[in-house]
Amino acid sequence: MNGKLRQLLVPVLAAVAGLAFVAQTFAQTDPLPFWNEGAAKQAIVKFVEATTTQGSPSFVPPAERVATFDQDGTLWVEHPMYSQVVYCFDRVPAVVKAKPELANVEPFRTVLSGNREAIAKLSMDDLFKILATTLTGMSVEDFKTEARKWLDTARDPRWKRPYTELTYLPMQEVLKYLRANGYRTYIVTGGGQDFVRMYADEVYGIPPEQIVGTASGTKYGYTKNGKPFLTKEPKLLLNDNNAGKPEGIYLMIGRRPFAAFGNSTGDRQMLEYTKAGTGERLAMLVLHDDAQREYAYGPAQGLPATKVGMFTQALYDQAKREGWVVISMKSDWKRIFSFEP
Amino acid sequence: MNGKLRQLLVPVLAAVAGLAFVAQTFAQTDPLPFWNEGAAKQAIVKFVEATTTQGSPSFVPPAERVATFDQDGTLWVEHPMYSQVVYCFDRVPAVVKAKPELANVEPFRTVLSGNREAIAKLSMDDLFKILATTLTGMSVEDFKTEARKWLDTARDPRWKRPYTELTYLPMQEVLKYLRANGYRTYIVTGGGQDFVRMYADEVYGIPPEQIVGTASGTKYGYTKNGKPFLTKEPKLLLNDNNAGKPEGIYLMIGRRPFAAFGNSTGDRQMLEYTKAGTGERLAMLVLHDDAQREYAYGPAQGLPATKVGMFTQALYDQAKREGWVVISMKSDWKRIFSFEP
Repeated sequence: MNGKLRQLLVPVLAAVAGLAFVAQTFAQTDPLPFWNEGAAKQAIVKFVEATTTQGSPSFVPPAERVATFDQDGTLWVEHPMYSQVVYCFDRVPAVVKAKPELANVEPFRTVLSGNREAIAKLSMDDLFKILATTLTGMSVEDFKTEARKWLDTARDPRWKRPYTELTYLPMQEVLKYLRANGYRTYIVTGGGQDFVRMYADEVYGIPPEQIVGTASGTKYGYTKNGKPFLTKEPKLLLNDNNAGKPEGIYLMIGRRPFAAFGNSTGDRQMLEYTKAGTGERLAMLVLHDDAQREYAYGPAQGLPATKVGMFTQALYDQAKREGWVVISMKSDWKRIFSFEP
Repeated sequence: MNGKLRQLLVPVLAAVAGLAFVAQTFAQTDPLPFWNEGAAKQAIVKFVEATTTQGSPSFVPPAERVATFDQDGTLWVEHPMYSQVVYCFDRVPAVVKAKPELANVEPFRTVLSGNREAIAKLSMDDLFKILATTLTGMSVEDFKTEARKWLDTARDPRWKRPYTELTYLPMQEVLKYLRANGYRTYIVTGGGQDFVRMYADEVYGIPPEQIVGTASGTKYGYTKNGKPFLTKEPKLLLNDNNAGKPEGIYLMIGRRPFAAFGNSTGDRQMLEYTKAGTGERLAMLVLHDDAQREYAYGPAQGLPATKVGMFTQALYDQAKREGWVVISMKSDWKRIFSFEP
């Protein structure tokens, strides 16, 4: 090599070597810095490496990389009440104003009374009546306007923050880590599909078409001026809980997930369905065992069952038996929220 | 610049210039070579340029680029009978073998008779009975096995080719052109969602999660050994025709399309819904007016209505009135099938 050529090539080669060094450093960077070392973190990293390393016996082609996440209690706080249920309760006065005849009809009368004890005793049937009345019978655009207003102004009573900030930092890391490795991340939630679609892109980076949720039908019609619009109907199309989760996954995605994350009996069938596939599959359950930083609840910890987050002893036993990995919020997560120091 | 440096750089610069030339040539390459010059081709190119050129007033962010396509009669041949209906008819003998009591029950007796005239007279109700009986009551895996067998062996009577080859080359070009410009292409079909998912990836490059179709519910259960599986139920969740198309789009995608392609009254509402959005929107209808190379049918050409492809005069008038672009197979398409010279 003559002197001039060397002069010219040396910085080029140095730059190439530098790039290689950067690449290596990047590869060695911890993909889950907010997770403590342990079985849960290991399971996630092992799964990603096994399914995305070319030549691995468990290699999954990019098109088939699907991971599904329950939302309430898995990606963000669900206690003491699902945020969407809070939304529906908050909507009751406006609905009653529009239909005054509801003021003396149960369960609306109880909700309006503000009597917390009586409200806590409402049955599931009452709850469905409230959901149906506050979430349907309007155009999808009107629904979006109302939901947006609430999301921008409502505050969680404990942290005094918008509900959309109560998302778990370590789970956000898992979403990003999976996506960085070619996985498409889906939310599969018992919550309302179009409610979750309102904020999931901004909160989790998950676009509307990757939200599978409980869905009511819509009805196509026209305004007086002939402009088409959709009205939300009180007709349940998909109850995306329990068996409804794999059924909803089949309907909306048409592929079996390779990884699934949940936190309650409502996620049991989704995890079973995921693990029943061939090759390497990952099933994980978040256990709410951190009374100080978040909440501790449910029979798996000898605590009474609540209306939300039914992590029963039977679910815990099934997890152990079938190789699902339980995530302890208390010991697996270094930090829970982004707003905490 | 000294001589050595110049010696070294000249080929590099030449290579860079070459790349620029290639890029320019590529940009000037006709994206739709199987389309004749005309209003239809122009409308497609103009739409893509307007919505994907940075700085254009109609620019659409990549995440929102959704284009929806009807299948039967829009992407492939639907005449004289939808291929899925042929599948269901072909399945009748096997179903009757499994349930011999059906042999003397209508409409199964007529189908088994092979009497073409009587079969042609079956009502829509009869047809639904045949669809429900041949498409449900089995596990989704068994359904896939049966459908795969049929797709591999069945032949269209006119061209003697697998149905999956009867796809329109110019429409394949549109799919690829849109995808090359960041659009996600969806099929929104009156056909069975899980039937179309069987072949859409291989035929159109459209993955299962981008198929919106008529869908029956499934039911989650377990084998004797405790392995979970889904059974196809005779319960209609989504009738993805007419108003069902925008309703299905809202359910499955949650975004309004920027471009929509159809060929019959069943696509009317999808096109209306698409055009009702803000900014540049494209609505197109394929007119079957090529009796020689494919078929000519429907009232828009003064021909009698058939059981498929109802391109009525009213639809034609609405298209003209609302700025939807009609594609003439005869004059807009240079070639129809890939297997033709």
